Amino acid sequence: MDERGERVVSSAQLATRCSVNAAQVRKDFAYFGEFGIRGVGYYVKDLLQDIKRILGLNREWRMALIGIGNLGSALLSYKDFLKQNYKIVAAFDINPLKVIGRVSEKLGKPVEVLHISRLRDTAKERKIEIGIITTPASEAQSVANLLVEAEVRGILNFAPTQIKVPEGYVVRDVLFTSVLDNLAYLLTN
Amino acid sequence: MDERGERVVSSAQLATRCSVNAAQVRKDFAYFGEFGIRGVGYYVKDLLQDIKRILGLNREWRMALIGIGNLGSALLSYKDFLKQNYKIVAAFDINPLKVIGRVSEKLGKPVEVLHISRLRDTAKERKIEIGIITTPASEAQSVANLLVEAEVRGILNFAPTQIKVPEGYVVRDVLFTSVLDNLAYLLTN
Repeated sequence: MDERGERVVSSAQLATRCSVNAAQVRKDFAYFGEFGIRGVGYYVKDLLQDIKRILGLNREWRMALIGIGNLGSALLSYKDFLKQNYKIVAAFDINPLKVIGRVSEKLGKPVEVLHISRLRDTAKERKIEIGIITTPASEAQSVANLLVEAEVRGILNFAPTQIKVPEGYVVRDVLFTSVLDNLAYLLTN
Repeated sequence: MDERGERVVSSAQLATRCSVNAAQVRKDFAYFGEFGIRGVGYYVKDLLQDIKRILGLNREWRMALIGIGNLGSALLSYKDFLKQNYKIVAAFDINPLKVIGRVSEKLGKPVEVLHISRLRDTAKERKIEIGIITTPASEAQSVANLLVEAEVRGILNFAPTQIKVPEGYVVRDVLFTSVLDNLAYLLTN
């Protein structure tokens, strides 16, 4: 909306875009404080900044990607990350020489692939805060342990297995088959 | 547990595995009927079959994948789909000749990539029930429309955009940046 030059938006308009109801939009915003002006709506530019601040998106997040298989390669060239200030600043594999061809073929400016043993030092040097795990399930926990050792506090896990981390660390899973299970359930019932 | 020959499991053991509490496990099961035996727990084999039946996973789901970019190629070779009875039986692209090299390179037995214009007929012939959209965001809604025309009732959407479908159809999104936003929020607050 901001890009299109729209200045004001109502909770009803936002609700339609998000396929929820207007009361829910107002309630969700109210949880974080005062937004918008009664009878007018929300100023698009202000709302955008407020939401970014709340979500922690008003700054860059520096990420490392570990495991350069098919999925890892796809994520290295996933343009939407960068559009939203998520930046992959390091990539690791157990066999960096083997995967270098695949990576550079897909990227205009390739990210250097380092051996996994360099995770700890590199994470500190490059101020990495989020680690993306795209290894096989069997390797995911040990990679998570390395990330914890390197004090990388956030983990985005694509490996189909459950990862345990100490308090103060956060894991979010992207499990394709869980989403499919949900779809299968809805189609069945 | 079944593969390891374990015969019985308690709600407390299940709870630990899932990082929830035992009362929640019992409550969730109770929602679907009577499971387990008081003071004993659940018979692993029976519980597995019951859960599969409830989730609609006691049968094969036939899927089509549309958009063979980096992510589409990665999903074509995602082994966990097959392990859970999700089978990609057709792949489509707007330029099938261009992507064939990439696909066959990654798969032992390549899935034939067809032109998108063949989606409707192929979906009926091959009894496809789920469509996976891995196109750019700009093409996602028109691909969804084609899936609806072909009466493919379930859509797994990887394109970073919101898709609308008529009643009776189900869309589930896999939005990597949404999961990252959630992670960024938790790391910030």
